[in-house]
Amino acid sequence: MAKKLNIGLIGYGFMGRAHSNAFLKANQFFDLEYEPVLKAACARNEDQLKSFADNWGWESTETDWRRLIERDDIDCIDIGSPNNTHKEIAIAAAEAGKMVLCEKPLSMDAAEGIAMTEAIEKAGVANMVWFNYRRVPAISLAKQLVDEGRLGRVFHYRALYLQDWTISPDLPQGGEGLWRLDAAIAGSGVTGDLLAHSIDTAIWLIGGVDKVSAATETFIKEREHQVTGKKQEVTIDDACMFLARFSNGALATFESTRYARGRKNYNTFEVNGEHGSIHFNLEDPHRLDYFDNRLDDHVHGWQSIHVTDMEHPYMDHYWVPGTTIGYEHTFVNAFADFLKSLEDGQDPVRPNFRDALETQHICDAVLKSAKTGAWENAKG
Amino acid sequence: MAKKLNIGLIGYGFMGRAHSNAFLKANQFFDLEYEPVLKAACARNEDQLKSFADNWGWESTETDWRRLIERDDIDCIDIGSPNNTHKEIAIAAAEAGKMVLCEKPLSMDAAEGIAMTEAIEKAGVANMVWFNYRRVPAISLAKQLVDEGRLGRVFHYRALYLQDWTISPDLPQGGEGLWRLDAAIAGSGVTGDLLAHSIDTAIWLIGGVDKVSAATETFIKEREHQVTGKKQEVTIDDACMFLARFSNGALATFESTRYARGRKNYNTFEVNGEHGSIHFNLEDPHRLDYFDNRLDDHVHGWQSIHVTDMEHPYMDHYWVPGTTIGYEHTFVNAFADFLKSLEDGQDPVRPNFRDALETQHICDAVLKSAKTGAWENAKG
Amino acid sequence: MAKKLNIGLIGYGFMGRAHSNAFLKANQFFDLEYEPVLKAACARNEDQLKSFADNWGWESTETDWRRLIERDDIDCIDIGSPNNTHKEIAIAAAEAGKMVLCEKPLSMDAAEGIAMTEAIEKAGVANMVWFNYRRVPAISLAKQLVDEGRLGRVFHYRALYLQDWTISPDLPQGGEGLWRLDAAIAGSGVTGDLLAHSIDTAIWLIGGVDKVSAATETFIKEREHQVTGKKQEVTIDDACMFLARFSNGALATFESTRYARGRKNYNTFEVNGEHGSIHFNLEDPHRLDYFDNRLDDHVHGWQSIHVTDMEHPYMDHYWVPGTTIGYEHTFVNAFADFLKSLEDGQDPVRPNFRDALETQHICDAVLKSAKTGAWENAKG
Amino acid sequence: MAKKLNIGLIGYGFMGRAHSNAFLKANQFFDLEYEPVLKAACARNEDQLKSFADNWGWESTETDWRRLIERDDIDCIDIGSPNNTHKEIAIAAAEAGKMVLCEKPLSMDAAEGIAMTEAIEKAGVANMVWFNYRRVPAISLAKQLVDEGRLGRVFHYRALYLQDWTISPDLPQGGEGLWRLDAAIAGSGVTGDLLAHSIDTAIWLIGGVDKVSAATETFIKEREHQVTGKKQEVTIDDACMFLARFSNGALATFESTRYARGRKNYNTFEVNGEHGSIHFNLEDPHRLDYFDNRLDDHVHGWQSIHVTDMEHPYMDHYWVPGTTIGYEHTFVNAFADFLKSLEDGQDPVRPNFRDALETQHICDAVLKSAKTGAWENAKG
Repeated sequence: MAKKLNIGLIGYGFMGRAHSNAFLKANQFFDLEYEPVLKAACARNEDQLKSFADNWGWESTETDWRRLIERDDIDCIDIGSPNNTHKEIAIAAAEAGKMVLCEKPLSMDAAEGIAMTEAIEKAGVANMVWFNYRRVPAISLAKQLVDEGRLGRVFHYRALYLQDWTISPDLPQGGEGLWRLDAAIAGSGVTGDLLAHSIDTAIWLIGGVDKVSAATETFIKEREHQVTGKKQEVTIDDACMFLARFSNGALATFESTRYARGRKNYNTFEVNGEHGSIHFNLEDPHRLDYFDNRLDDHVHGWQSIHVTDMEHPYMDHYWVPGTTIGYEHTFVNAFADFLKSLEDGQDPVRPNFRDALETQHICDAVLKSAKTGAWENAKG
Repeated sequence: MAKKLNIGLIGYGFMGRAHSNAFLKANQFFDLEYEPVLKAACARNEDQLKSFADNWGWESTETDWRRLIERDDIDCIDIGSPNNTHKEIAIAAAEAGKMVLCEKPLSMDAAEGIAMTEAIEKAGVANMVWFNYRRVPAISLAKQLVDEGRLGRVFHYRALYLQDWTISPDLPQGGEGLWRLDAAIAGSGVTGDLLAHSIDTAIWLIGGVDKVSAATETFIKEREHQVTGKKQEVTIDDACMFLARFSNGALATFESTRYARGRKNYNTFEVNGEHGSIHFNLEDPHRLDYFDNRLDDHVHGWQSIHVTDMEHPYMDHYWVPGTTIGYEHTFVNAFADFLKSLEDGQDPVRPNFRDALETQHICDAVLKSAKTGAWENAKG
Repeated sequence: MAKKLNIGLIGYGFMGRAHSNAFLKANQFFDLEYEPVLKAACARNEDQLKSFADNWGWESTETDWRRLIERDDIDCIDIGSPNNTHKEIAIAAAEAGKMVLCEKPLSMDAAEGIAMTEAIEKAGVANMVWFNYRRVPAISLAKQLVDEGRLGRVFHYRALYLQDWTISPDLPQGGEGLWRLDAAIAGSGVTGDLLAHSIDTAIWLIGGVDKVSAATETFIKEREHQVTGKKQEVTIDDACMFLARFSNGALATFESTRYARGRKNYNTFEVNGEHGSIHFNLEDPHRLDYFDNRLDDHVHGWQSIHVTDMEHPYMDHYWVPGTTIGYEHTFVNAFADFLKSLEDGQDPVRPNFRDALETQHICDAVLKSAKTGAWENAKG
Repeated sequence: MAKKLNIGLIGYGFMGRAHSNAFLKANQFFDLEYEPVLKAACARNEDQLKSFADNWGWESTETDWRRLIERDDIDCIDIGSPNNTHKEIAIAAAEAGKMVLCEKPLSMDAAEGIAMTEAIEKAGVANMVWFNYRRVPAISLAKQLVDEGRLGRVFHYRALYLQDWTISPDLPQGGEGLWRLDAAIAGSGVTGDLLAHSIDTAIWLIGGVDKVSAATETFIKEREHQVTGKKQEVTIDDACMFLARFSNGALATFESTRYARGRKNYNTFEVNGEHGSIHFNLEDPHRLDYFDNRLDDHVHGWQSIHVTDMEHPYMDHYWVPGTTIGYEHTFVNAFADFLKSLEDGQDPVRPNFRDALETQHICDAVLKSAKTGAWENAKG
């Protein structure tokens, strides 16, 4: 008999949909002791909320997140609302003794992140931050190859996260579906939205960052704001690039933009080590490229691993070898791991708030360096 | 208020899972008048059936498909059981006035297929055969490009469907999970299982086939049978290749095997026309390669279309540009199309039994030619 | 002190240029006892011949190939003229005791090829047929991998040779630069021009062919003839595809056309064996794809070998790792191998006339099968 | 009647071979008024020089470059010797009124480069620096696409030049074939050897650089020196990465290393503009990837242009569409352009000393920033 876990979701946007889908699917594909109940969805716009709740099968709705947290029948708060709401909700939820799932980036800045992490750790509640890309099977496999010692000493890391959807000057900023373009709500532009993903993957794969030198740019200086209807200054970073030195001595470059024509969701990374290298591209998420220098010299080459076999992370839970899973399954995998971690004897799931705070410190250092023009300490 | 469509599913194997998932998801992603109810699942092994029904939320179970068809609360019979059961079930369901969804290949041979198609058409019931790959967005886009006249006169078609999972002589044949290796149950080997897909796509894209010249091979002559426990002759075709002439004058080659080391689900096709060409590979299902000869000469090149944008077939129902869907969504898309076709004023869904019969005629001609060594008529 | 080898070249077209270049470059990159002397170039059009000889440094010219063969200062006759001239020249050169290099295809048909091969073998002269693609380093590496036993039992071979340069109906046939479109001079269309290459590679890599089933097509039925100025029937095969059974039990498909929009010189092959597979594409001639099933399961993948390292065939004679050589170097490599074979204790170079005759027998069987519609014996 | 241009070459290493080959081949493939004469080769090691001169057909040899410059029968001095010799030779040659060809990087540092450029311009002699990659047909095509306005406003540039040949700590530094690892002779490590190429391409394609922020690293701190036989400090940069701001407002990242396992000669760049993007990789030098946002939305995709057609830069001088040229032809193309520029009415060839000096200023700023940790002015 499955143990029920009552979920209260805040936010019905893109992430609200992705999380709802994950809650519904995890137990169909994974054998787990806990089973989620879609207890209540919460947002301010009641009409849209009702329609959303109806579509995904949420049992009830709330329009005030404080009320949601007060409810005794909620075990776990899932924060899928914009970045500027994370701190207050997370701390209140933790203080109420709820488990907390939080969308990335963790917070508007590291100061907020510290307060949140301290509250969570003080409360001792289960927690996870939705850096879902760790659960792309090919990225999980990359982690496995690193852990198996297949790369040896790491010399280089390079990551790109390129998109092209904001090139038009006619695109408005702010408001429905576009809050990621409003710094007051998002905290930053590509740094928090995209580079946070790249950084989370990097520190998971090869460890911490010591210092960074960065530059940012806002290519289109003014855009109409959807809410005010006025042309206003754009306050987010459209693009951000930085050099980094890792604690293990590796050099790294990171770059993100929404102005790279032809790149849709081009989240790539490459690690170069003594014995081998790996390369990943989220536009071909079912592949991992691996170069193994210990093979015979005349057959050296980049192997394109089609990460769809039963031996690969997560894939034995789905279909048959050679068939792919999609973007949404990274959330399914993450949530299954979260549920699993609640079983007796299991380790807490990662990345948790503490891990996400490390990423937040690096983001802060990047934004600071972009202003000072100097190398900045990224350890927080 | 959604109109309910009560489904009765037969078979809980690989396809039973894929269909159940599609029934559960279609209405979350598509706006449809009809909504499926997972009314009853049917199979002979009651224990496994219960577990399956429980996992996917089927309301009830039956162990005799005849009983399922008799039930008044079932509107639509979905046949997901092995090939040798299709004919009897489909005819009985049609005669009972049920809608019929049927897994591919339609039947053991064209003779069966004729009887089935006649029964379905006589009953006038809604029907669809699950050639799910038509609903890979990239293949739907290929159809769109052809229909837009972008290729012009077609000269060549070539299709491969390569796998490598039966190379080991230690793999048994027949029984649980392996009935596709037993000709008494599957009808044929790669011809019905894999080439039927390739043929369905081909005739959809460029029209009918006049005649074929084929060869088949069974590389491992004997395998242990899982059911009898004895080493027995292998009666399926491990590999099949054929030349074809299409009615429109195009030449074609088709090949399928389960002995192509390194190819997992390598279902590819290429069409070469006067003005352009297209190429697809199911191992990168989110991409379609397109060569447009009408661009300026010096920028001619194969375009790798990342079929994940809002302009692409089906993709506006899912996430954001650049994010992929998975294998399972081909079933979701197909079922959504089926439900849509039930609405007033909509055309019947395709491929229907009549379409699948055309593929069956070609498969029969292929297997016949492999025996006679002569070109055989493929029009049935 | 290098031993001089006096060359007499017949033909100043595309192949005349490629061979001249090879004669000039072989000794700069390879350490060889013999050194060619560009003694005399021969062709009927004296003006163009003079210009050609001047450009490439030929010491003298002849307008009658019989006169060239009579010259005592010529050691080696290189036949670069159209296919319908090969037989007479090769036999005369052999009878005069000259070494003979001959462009492919060997002859108009197998009957001619038999006479030529017998004359060559009777004379006992050094001989080579310019199937230059054996000397693409990546194809030589493919041969090495096969010989190392890396593939195991071979199940499948498939080869394509696709081009797109004759799609326009306005392209004339015959005459200067276009004799390959005139069956009276070329013998056949894509079968002799392109498939002969594919077949030579195939039999080198995995052995002989037993029988074939083929189809050919001429898509544009009439074209203006450059020489007569009249619209005449096109007598070559624009496209040819065939199924084959190899002596070792492998199944194979071959296809060639000049109507595959977007394919320029798309000469590809794939071999699927028990333990591994290889794939090659002449449009990326410096790469060989290799799948090794004996690696750890979770890192299985197609390796793209960049065949530019010192360990790779021929590459230690050129530049530095990572830098590519071009189309012309396949001729340089072939000629260097020919010169090397003249040194004491070296094996005769391959492919020789006997090897090329084997390919010619298969081509004849293909063209015959395309007429009869039956499987035809390919062993000659 | 061709006008003779008497060449005096200094250096018989890798570049001495590449240049000699180019001198021999340019006139066979290009129709030019001037024709080079391989008059004299010069180096200190007389035995090796003789062998080199013999192999490539140099008419005479000199062991003192001053003597070579003094010779009246030399029109053009080609500097292929190590970087620390460039300045003195170039200035002396210019003062003697000789044309000057010089290998890249131009000089040990910008101070040297200024003196050289001033001497060359004062003398008014024809001059070219061998940034050969501008003459990769695909890179020339990239320039053409930019000049045609196909990209629009440029937002981003990113370049990598990755190799992996110095990872072993057992590789010695300095001496025969390894002077590039000795800063006293090379000036710098990857910055001058590899990034100079990347920078030259960048400024040619999109214009000048304003400022940079850089980091360098030497991973292996000590290596045996081939000349002294002693273990000594390694003084070159093994790796270098930098951020840049271009004068046109574009952001850029550049990175080079010899520690990227699996990357042999991975010289890549990408340009992202308003209307399109281009991507190039020297490991597939015959391809240029191009994304054109002005095509119909549903066929957007990266086009892989196979730069081997008659419409492409340089390619009409070689073989047939679809066939590739090699690394060496970038030198042939460059030298042909140089010879062409000597004809009446032609513009001087580029890149000249002035262009190479601009690159040198950027390299100096990069190395300075790597020391200071601050953004440095790159305009010189």
